Amino acid sequence: MAQYTLYCFAESGNAYKAALMLALAQQDWQAKWVDFFHGETRTDAYRKDVNEMGEVPVLLHGGERLTQSGVILHYLAEQTGRFSSHDPATRREILRWMFFDNHKFTSYIATLRFLLTFMKSGETEITNFMRGRAEGALDIVNKHLAGQDYLVGNELTIADLSMCGYLYYGDELGLSLAPYDFIEAWLGRIRSQPGWQAPYDLMPKAAG
Amino acid sequence: MAQYTLYCFAESGNAYKAALMLALAQQDWQAKWVDFFHGETRTDAYRKDVNEMGEVPVLLHGGERLTQSGVILHYLAEQTGRFSSHDPATRREILRWMFFDNHKFTSYIATLRFLLTFMKSGETEITNFMRGRAEGALDIVNKHLAGQDYLVGNELTIADLSMCGYLYYGDELGLSLAPYDFIEAWLGRIRSQPGWQAPYDLMPKAAG
Repeated sequence: MAQYTLYCFAESGNAYKAALMLALAQQDWQAKWVDFFHGETRTDAYRKDVNEMGEVPVLLHGGERLTQSGVILHYLAEQTGRFSSHDPATRREILRWMFFDNHKFTSYIATLRFLLTFMKSGETEITNFMRGRAEGALDIVNKHLAGQDYLVGNELTIADLSMCGYLYYGDELGLSLAPYDFIEAWLGRIRSQPGWQAPYDLMPKAAG
Repeated sequence: MAQYTLYCFAESGNAYKAALMLALAQQDWQAKWVDFFHGETRTDAYRKDVNEMGEVPVLLHGGERLTQSGVILHYLAEQTGRFSSHDPATRREILRWMFFDNHKFTSYIATLRFLLTFMKSGETEITNFMRGRAEGALDIVNKHLAGQDYLVGNELTIADLSMCGYLYYGDELGLSLAPYDFIEAWLGRIRSQPGWQAPYDLMPKAAG
């Protein structure tokens, strides 16, 4: 049995954040596929036994069961000694971008993709609203990356792994990253890390 | 000059999270009012000199300038020794609820209120969507609080201060908390803490 077990499915960018961390830190891990599209995360059993928040990712390690990608990334940084810092100010800066990611970046980008690609909603008032918010957040991140290689200084950290999670899904996003030069360059830098794999290569996907 | 300066405005539940922490921990702090409704957070000057993310709250303390309510709450917990824990598992559990708050709880509740109360959008597809997501998150928190007094065990922590931030705005929310008994009881417990004040009593509001 692998050291780490990650409840995930390949379409989940939040799960990808954790899977990418495990891959880049060259950890011994296995995926446990969750059948999100047939409602597994909404069942009583999943909410009772796996995650009351009804989400992936969930990480098992020893006796620990962790949820929320932000918590899992912090935990793996501690366990592996990779992609964080011992400096308190640097750690606060990492945490700052991870909260921004959860609140203003992934939240809109992931929801826009979910509606367009998986719910096949077509363009609606809602997707228009989400896209506007997503573009505002992309602008902020793009400006920030104009001055530095990674979100926090010039080293890859878990802040980058959190923020990039949904941006490797290409056309599924329903918005173009082309206007955001510095984001595209930054995604290229992460992609060139040893061990990097795209979401659909790193995690199991439903058959069919 | 006070020990802490908080950039805020009374309508911001995210600023309230930090202000409430300062009040409950009986810290020496002053508010610096931000004219959000006339676009101050969207100006180049604000983004350059105060917060590139274009948001409140921002906390000044000594030479530090901190943004994101989740970072500020962690920092104040460290500085004051209040509302957190030295136990790593407990700290992870606190962080878990704070990420959930940012991603799935405040994000929808605050946006619904913003559209209805400040943009006066009326009921739209967008508010309907936001309310559905908000109610899903409220259900999860309500179930969790059925078993315990506070989000993490039976002590007030910064996870509670984060999650409750928008819930004291009453009718402005555009949704009823009445179906969520355990949330209402929990809000009562926080309200009874020494030093508790409502958002409009704790922070400055625009004149008129």
